[in-house]
Amino acid sequence: MAMSAPDYSGFKTLIVTLDGSVLVVLQNRSKQRNSWADGVPQELQKVFDLADRDDRVRVVIVTAEHTAPAYCAGADLGPRGWSTIWTPEEEKEGRHAHRDAGGKTSLAIYRCRKITIAAVNGHAAGVGMTAMQLPFDFRFVWAKAKLTFPFVRRGIVPEATSSYLLPRLLGHSRANSLLLTGATFTPESPLIQSLYHQILPTREEVFPAALAFARELAATTSQVSVAVTKSLIQNPGSSAEENHIYDSRAMRELASTADGEEGIRSFLEKREPKFTGTLSKELGEWYPWWREINTKHRNGKL
Amino acid sequence: MAMSAPDYSGFKTLIVTLDGSVLVVLQNRSKQRNSWADGVPQELQKVFDLADRDDRVRVVIVTAEHTAPAYCAGADLGPRGWSTIWTPEEEKEGRHAHRDAGGKTSLAIYRCRKITIAAVNGHAAGVGMTAMQLPFDFRFVWAKAKLTFPFVRRGIVPEATSSYLLPRLLGHSRANSLLLTGATFTPESPLIQSLYHQILPTREEVFPAALAFARELAATTSQVSVAVTKSLIQNPGSSAEENHIYDSRAMRELASTADGEEGIRSFLEKREPKFTGTLSKELGEWYPWWREINTKHRNGKL
Amino acid sequence: MAMSAPDYSGFKTLIVTLDGSVLVVLQNRSKQRNSWADGVPQELQKVFDLADRDDRVRVVIVTAEHTAPAYCAGADLGPRGWSTIWTPEEEKEGRHAHRDAGGKTSLAIYRCRKITIAAVNGHAAGVGMTAMQLPFDFRFVWAKAKLTFPFVRRGIVPEATSSYLLPRLLGHSRANSLLLTGATFTPESPLIQSLYHQILPTREEVFPAALAFARELAATTSQVSVAVTKSLIQNPGSSAEENHIYDSRAMRELASTADGEEGIRSFLEKREPKFTGTLSKELGEWYPWWREINTKHRNGKL
Repeated sequence: MAMSAPDYSGFKTLIVTLDGSVLVVLQNRSKQRNSWADGVPQELQKVFDLADRDDRVRVVIVTAEHTAPAYCAGADLGPRGWSTIWTPEEEKEGRHAHRDAGGKTSLAIYRCRKITIAAVNGHAAGVGMTAMQLPFDFRFVWAKAKLTFPFVRRGIVPEATSSYLLPRLLGHSRANSLLLTGATFTPESPLIQSLYHQILPTREEVFPAALAFARELAATTSQVSVAVTKSLIQNPGSSAEENHIYDSRAMRELASTADGEEGIRSFLEKREPKFTGTLSKELGEWYPWWREINTKHRNGKL
Repeated sequence: MAMSAPDYSGFKTLIVTLDGSVLVVLQNRSKQRNSWADGVPQELQKVFDLADRDDRVRVVIVTAEHTAPAYCAGADLGPRGWSTIWTPEEEKEGRHAHRDAGGKTSLAIYRCRKITIAAVNGHAAGVGMTAMQLPFDFRFVWAKAKLTFPFVRRGIVPEATSSYLLPRLLGHSRANSLLLTGATFTPESPLIQSLYHQILPTREEVFPAALAFARELAATTSQVSVAVTKSLIQNPGSSAEENHIYDSRAMRELASTADGEEGIRSFLEKREPKFTGTLSKELGEWYPWWREINTKHRNGKL
Repeated sequence: MAMSAPDYSGFKTLIVTLDGSVLVVLQNRSKQRNSWADGVPQELQKVFDLADRDDRVRVVIVTAEHTAPAYCAGADLGPRGWSTIWTPEEEKEGRHAHRDAGGKTSLAIYRCRKITIAAVNGHAAGVGMTAMQLPFDFRFVWAKAKLTFPFVRRGIVPEATSSYLLPRLLGHSRANSLLLTGATFTPESPLIQSLYHQILPTREEVFPAALAFARELAATTSQVSVAVTKSLIQNPGSSAEENHIYDSRAMRELASTADGEEGIRSFLEKREPKFTGTLSKELGEWYPWWREINTKHRNGKL
């Protein structure tokens, strides 16, 4: 479904800029260590929902000022305590309204069909490690960043779908070391290293490296290919055989799009491809092939 | 369910000592290379079942004398051959009574909701690699330990749920290298390295490192947080959406416990937390959220 | 089911040689960079189907001439474009006949119950990275090989069940870096390193290293143990409990075969085992324990 070009102004906790086809999301609470207060997760969800449907956007980068005390220091804890994790309305609705702001944000990022990059140019803790890193396709990080999943040391549990995402990203052995200790690591530790696509020596270098990478991918890859590849990785089916049915259908469909044809032509002509396909035009009735649980329904035990 | 404090004396193949909140399980068959004979798996299962329900226990460490010829040399093979893997009663019941001692022990360790550590201060083979390492949360190891999954070289198969656990811990590429060769590795090999939380240069250092780590976790983490985090990692649901339902409910529940409140208070007061919650008091009807297959039922094809 | 010894002559795109118990499959299109044209995937599928049922074969190695311009450069793209991925008959049948040649080949390799090795002694791209590497048990590679999953830069998607296999082999963090960039890597990059069992400095060394490894495994392991271990790794069940039911049954069955007994005897006699069991004789009604989706059925949405 095409839509009129969305407007990225008007955010309060974020500064959102469309730089060519790269949407740069700069956290705007440096003085508060980019902690999450009311408004932050809602604005992040809105950005990723818009970016998902905006054909102009190829890549979304989330980052911080490199002089900020942290990339994201986690939830902004104060007199309201953990209840900042839910909206005041949800607080009133009781325990069945338990869907936390971190999880909703993780899902918005995870479901965004554009390339997503976390440019972690400072320390990160709590939701700064979970929703602000794990659902992204790529993580760039400062080599000296202090990284902590502190949940077991705070009497709570890892949230924002981190117990699903982290073991898949780097295996259960490393995930245990990170989630069950609550300890602090730097990216050079073998326990966390494989979470990162690139590790940069200084804070200043992280965002430029991510931006150059984003621009290169935006220039050389197909929007439709990237979206369907992400969907295949996230929803591969439960066996090699089931995957064969999904990936071959996607191949058949994309092979006959303009991008599939340009892919061959540019290859034969030994030049860079020029892709024009967009998500709003190219995805047919075969997509999506998987079913999602409705996380908004509040009946039942959980 | 609370219970009176269990007694850890009276084991024969193990020496079990409650050191503060750390339960130390020392294998007591050094002369037999800590191989498994009748009694060993049954006693291990009993220890982990007790530890799971004993609120005093925060961490369980399994180790060996560092002067023993091995951490655990595998099954004690002799004239009875592989049939030592089943009890004499099971042997009589025939093929449908096939649940092996290694698998029962793996499950007892895997299901234990306390922090579990294998302090592998010597060579390990067979069940010494599978049940005695893979279901634990953390593995500490001597850098020169000879490590072998010998099953394909013995005419049998990897047991004790290792074909489930190992690929999840470090990925299928490494798991193939370990399980399909039956070769011997040291922890410094890139093929097995990521199985270990810490690799120590000498045998003497392994247990003290594990013990210091255990005490630190016991002092700084919440018993309830650790148990529910382990459950989330083991039972994350089959999608990010399903995980969001489980982890947000767990968050909601734990946020309102004494430990959740102490987590915030200690954070705001910039001091170490003092957690008091216990599994026997804090887990409500929402826990567990998953269903387990009954492995004791013996009908059907398998 | 026993069968008469198959004949490995008569292939056109491959040179297939039974060297003792090691089946060596040499790609025979060096001048075409070992790209896939009509006939290549069909012949590969035939080799692996035969090898699966031929009790003489213990290991299958796929390789290339080390002087060829590439190990496998991917699909042979020309005027027919992507439609070379389907047979002319499938092209006529329309979109529901979408099962691609790469996926069919991946499945034939993945299902082969013998040890499978890709000896990647040259550059690899596209299907040269997917079907020609991922479904194998082991990958040996030249340290300077240029390795590319170019799909998102060609307007299509990763095929041949790679979106299922690759994240399982080395985790989603690395799989994203490889599949969503379409960039070129060498095996020494930490982003791809863990895909490989062994990395060799020169092209000349790759095949000999793989062959020596193959012969060692053929000499020291049980055919039946390897096959059932592969099946356990591929079909572990969906929980540790379910795995316990499958692996303990497999253990019970194999323990009473000739190979299981020889495994103990050779261990007690401190000598190398001499296994005689074969797949055509030893697998009873308990095998297989899993169900496969029929990928040939063409009704339904996909």
